[in-house]
Amino acid sequence: MIAASKSLAIEHVEAFKKIVGGQHVFVDEEVLSHYAHDETEDLQFLPDVVIKPASAEEISAILKLCNQYKIAVTPRGAGTGLSGGALPHLGGVLLSIERLNKIINIDERNLQVTTESGVITEVLQDAVKERGLFYPPDPSSRGSCMIGGNISENSGGPKAVKYGVVKDYVMNLEVVLPTGEIIWTGANVLKNATGYNLTQLMVGSEGTLGIVTKAVLKLLPHPKYDLLMLVPFKDPVNACAAVSAIFMAGYTPSVLEFMERDALEFVMQYVDSCIVPLTDEVQAHLLIEVDGNDVDVLMKEMEGISEVVMQFDCGEILFADDAQQKAELWKLRRRAAEAVKANSIYKEEDTVVPRAELPLLLKGVKEIEGKYGFKSLCYGHAGDGNLHVNILKGDLTDEQWNGSLKKGIVEIFELVKALGGTISGEHGIGLVQKEYLPIVFDETQMRLMKGIKTIFDPNNILNAGKIFD
Amino acid sequence: MIAASKSLAIEHVEAFKKIVGGQHVFVDEEVLSHYAHDETEDLQFLPDVVIKPASAEEISAILKLCNQYKIAVTPRGAGTGLSGGALPHLGGVLLSIERLNKIINIDERNLQVTTESGVITEVLQDAVKERGLFYPPDPSSRGSCMIGGNISENSGGPKAVKYGVVKDYVMNLEVVLPTGEIIWTGANVLKNATGYNLTQLMVGSEGTLGIVTKAVLKLLPHPKYDLLMLVPFKDPVNACAAVSAIFMAGYTPSVLEFMERDALEFVMQYVDSCIVPLTDEVQAHLLIEVDGNDVDVLMKEMEGISEVVMQFDCGEILFADDAQQKAELWKLRRRAAEAVKANSIYKEEDTVVPRAELPLLLKGVKEIEGKYGFKSLCYGHAGDGNLHVNILKGDLTDEQWNGSLKKGIVEIFELVKALGGTISGEHGIGLVQKEYLPIVFDETQMRLMKGIKTIFDPNNILNAGKIFD
Repeated sequence: MIAASKSLAIEHVEAFKKIVGGQHVFVDEEVLSHYAHDETEDLQFLPDVVIKPASAEEISAILKLCNQYKIAVTPRGAGTGLSGGALPHLGGVLLSIERLNKIINIDERNLQVTTESGVITEVLQDAVKERGLFYPPDPSSRGSCMIGGNISENSGGPKAVKYGVVKDYVMNLEVVLPTGEIIWTGANVLKNATGYNLTQLMVGSEGTLGIVTKAVLKLLPHPKYDLLMLVPFKDPVNACAAVSAIFMAGYTPSVLEFMERDALEFVMQYVDSCIVPLTDEVQAHLLIEVDGNDVDVLMKEMEGISEVVMQFDCGEILFADDAQQKAELWKLRRRAAEAVKANSIYKEEDTVVPRAELPLLLKGVKEIEGKYGFKSLCYGHAGDGNLHVNILKGDLTDEQWNGSLKKGIVEIFELVKALGGTISGEHGIGLVQKEYLPIVFDETQMRLMKGIKTIFDPNNILNAGKIFD
Repeated sequence: MIAASKSLAIEHVEAFKKIVGGQHVFVDEEVLSHYAHDETEDLQFLPDVVIKPASAEEISAILKLCNQYKIAVTPRGAGTGLSGGALPHLGGVLLSIERLNKIINIDERNLQVTTESGVITEVLQDAVKERGLFYPPDPSSRGSCMIGGNISENSGGPKAVKYGVVKDYVMNLEVVLPTGEIIWTGANVLKNATGYNLTQLMVGSEGTLGIVTKAVLKLLPHPKYDLLMLVPFKDPVNACAAVSAIFMAGYTPSVLEFMERDALEFVMQYVDSCIVPLTDEVQAHLLIEVDGNDVDVLMKEMEGISEVVMQFDCGEILFADDAQQKAELWKLRRRAAEAVKANSIYKEEDTVVPRAELPLLLKGVKEIEGKYGFKSLCYGHAGDGNLHVNILKGDLTDEQWNGSLKKGIVEIFELVKALGGTISGEHGIGLVQKEYLPIVFDETQMRLMKGIKTIFDPNNILNAGKIFD
């Protein structure tokens, strides 16, 4: 495929102004710089122009023009991505969905919400919670990330272990195709056997097949109660081994997170919090939540889970007594990524394996780390088998960082594949992981994916060079 | 797209015999006749040859040959489909997956099962249940239908209301492409943001994009208890209205089925059962199940649901006291399709709407029925908004059956679309519904779907003419 042209003529900028209004088209350095990066490593690429349309119709007009002149378009939600999906690495148009920020209809009768794609995830969650409803997908960045970005990455977050990921909540999407047509992908229904599943094809396609402008999302009744506990372990591998044991004993926690000691120390310094008694022998924690509508049942589940984890040589379990304690514990987990980022340039590898293989994954990562001389901090959604391996730049030279380190990453991903897993659970492939995609897909799968891309985007204008070249 | 050639030379049959062994290739009339129909209406199409391969490698060799000579191939599970997906309407090769009948590995540590696609759904369910595990997708035909067919149709069944449909359980698929390559679509993980979701694209693609040979399916711990009740209503529209009220009150039943009186009468005659006291004023029933691990909680849920349905003018609720009563009630629902089929030629329309729109759907269907003078029996998975509208041929002439009746069906589907729904919830489009697909998809979506088909199947050999021409 041919990458779209980087050049952008002044008459195109004028045409964009006619479409969305002059005040929503930006070419000044300050704005361009703001949209030159997302949360991925330390990468920056300046777009030629930033456009902030307010409707599917405006986006359609922009894309028709870009398709005609083969201008590269990079769609962007809140820029919280960790694989570089929103980086405008080809210049051209940076198309922000931030003005598509209306929740259109909370349908309590059908337990579904219709929303524009630029709504912030937490805003949507709070709005439906006011009606007693629950939208579970819940990335750490929920306070700033957008529904459209979550759909593009098939985001997960801590509740996915019980409630599933974004794909499990998307029923129907309004999408502007790279060629400018506006379609709905499906219907507002819980089950659908009507043609190919274009909805699920869009979810996780990282803004390469179309720009999502509206979404119809499934909601649940909000569970009335949740209980939270923090379990310390002397041996991180034991913590990982406890994870599948909990499920095998018949429990499905609503959260089951793993954190290495070093990651916790980073956060504790960063947030200046000391609620957790971190004695010398503690090397890892599991954060475990159960939720439901009956406190007695939840108490029994907590007891049962406690009995399971005690078989894995855990230390004294901390049960969160009140909302404030819960918030403190959550803060430690939710701000881990920020804390790591504040401390060092880092690469985040988003490994995922069948959950019972977590102990082998963690052991393997630490062996590879020793072999290649880098330092990693591991935490993540252990209940899903999704371990974020944060590799710190620390004292590595640029040469090591961009060179020999990659051999170590390849070894980690080869291990992941051998364990039945894959190279991204929820962050996507984007720009920075595409070189590793051939580890898990051979040329046949790549041919199918590239073929699908061509069907949707014959001129390869939309987020070209993401996922694959 | 050009339909594959119908002609099949004798040397091709000989080549197939070399691939799978002569005893697994059939050209005799009796076998061909057996594979000429599925459970769809009264349609029959003779294939030229029936082949029963035993592995992905054999299927690959067959498809390579068919692709080279442009021979039409119709894949077939158990032939229980209701939209004609397995009908060999172009002649050519009928490829049965029935010998792919091994459960490869029940992985209790990871709560997943790897199985060949020709395993019968109930066989798989029973095998995992022996280990305390649960595979919920549960079509009425579970005693004979196959996992591969279920995947092709994205099947649902009564448990979908709480547990989701097939797509929610498929993690990874081994697929033989029409061009003969064997691929895995994903990884054996609960969350995956690695490239386009080829797994979900295969699910529900009705055997047009590839032949599924192995599947890795998610399992759950089997719930320990379930309670069942049957609720009679004088007014079927009230029964439908009670459905969304149950969810709005915060309950998620594991089953929530609707049956019209006439449908129930058909089954009662068919199975010669009289457990249900069917007084004159009863016009519809809801069959409601709750499941979980705590009987006290389930009892409370049953009470709560009872209070909800009583607001909709229901009659005396029948609570199933023991396993035998439960089996009797289930029999009435599960054998409804068989009973209708035994009574008359019929068309089954698989309507699905947002669940709170069910009352409007049912009213609309009955009005359209009156207008066009046909008789319908309605039952289905009301909790999902999925209503099976069975139109009986009865006294209709062939001309009416194949002519004016279609206008009525179009009106039903237009109503479904206006209510936010679509034309198939779980039966697929196949051969008999494709003429109605333009009601819900315009030419843009059709272009995308046909484009995807061409990427997977450039010579259009595999189940050509299904879903679309």
